[in-house]
Amino acid sequence: MRYTFEVLVSLKPGLADPQGAAVASALPALGWSNVTQVRVGKHVAVTLEAGSEEEARTQVEAIARRLLANPVIEEFRIVAGEAG
Amino acid sequence: MRYTFEVLVSLKPGLADPQGAAVASALPALGWSNVTQVRVGKHVAVTLEAGSEEEARTQVEAIARRLLANPVIEEFRIVAGEAG
Repeated sequence: MRYTFEVLVSLKPGLADPQGAAVASALPALGWSNVTQVRVGKHVAVTLEAGSEEEARTQVEAIARRLLANPVIEEFRIVAGEAG
Repeated sequence: MRYTFEVLVSLKPGLADPQGAAVASALPALGWSNVTQVRVGKHVAVTLEAGSEEEARTQVEAIARRLLANPVIEEFRIVAGEAG
C-alpha cells in the first residue's frame, strides 16, 4: 500500500534563525505586531510503498535521520501526510 | 494567550521539484527503493498573542497568504503547532 508521511525539520530551539527573524521583522509594517516568534524550517513529504503504516513510518524516520535532518543543528518530527 | 500554528508550504502538484527529485534519487543507493515521490517545501512556525485560537488561526492564514507562500506556484495549509 502507498503511504505519505511528512517530515517537519526545524532548527533546534535556541539556535539563531535569520530567515525566521527576517519574516518576523517584516510583520509589524504590515499591521501584525502581535507575532512573537517565527521559525522557518523544511517540510518534506515522502510517499512510499510499504506493507503497513507502522513499517512506512519507521522507514521515513530512518530516511529523515540519515538524509533530511542535520542532527547537530536540527530536529525533526513526523506527521501522517495527506492521502496521496 | 499565546498560540503557535505551523504553515506547511509546498509546491503545487505537477510542478517540477528538483530538490525533492534529488532526495528521491539518492534513496535507492541507501537501500530504500520503495519510495515513489519526495516533495520538499517550507515549514514556518508562527507564535503570536491573540484573543482566541480562531482569531490566531485567521491571522496566520493571512500572513501565509501575504508573505509566506507564492500563490502562483505554491499552496499551503495550516496545522496547530506544538504548545509553545
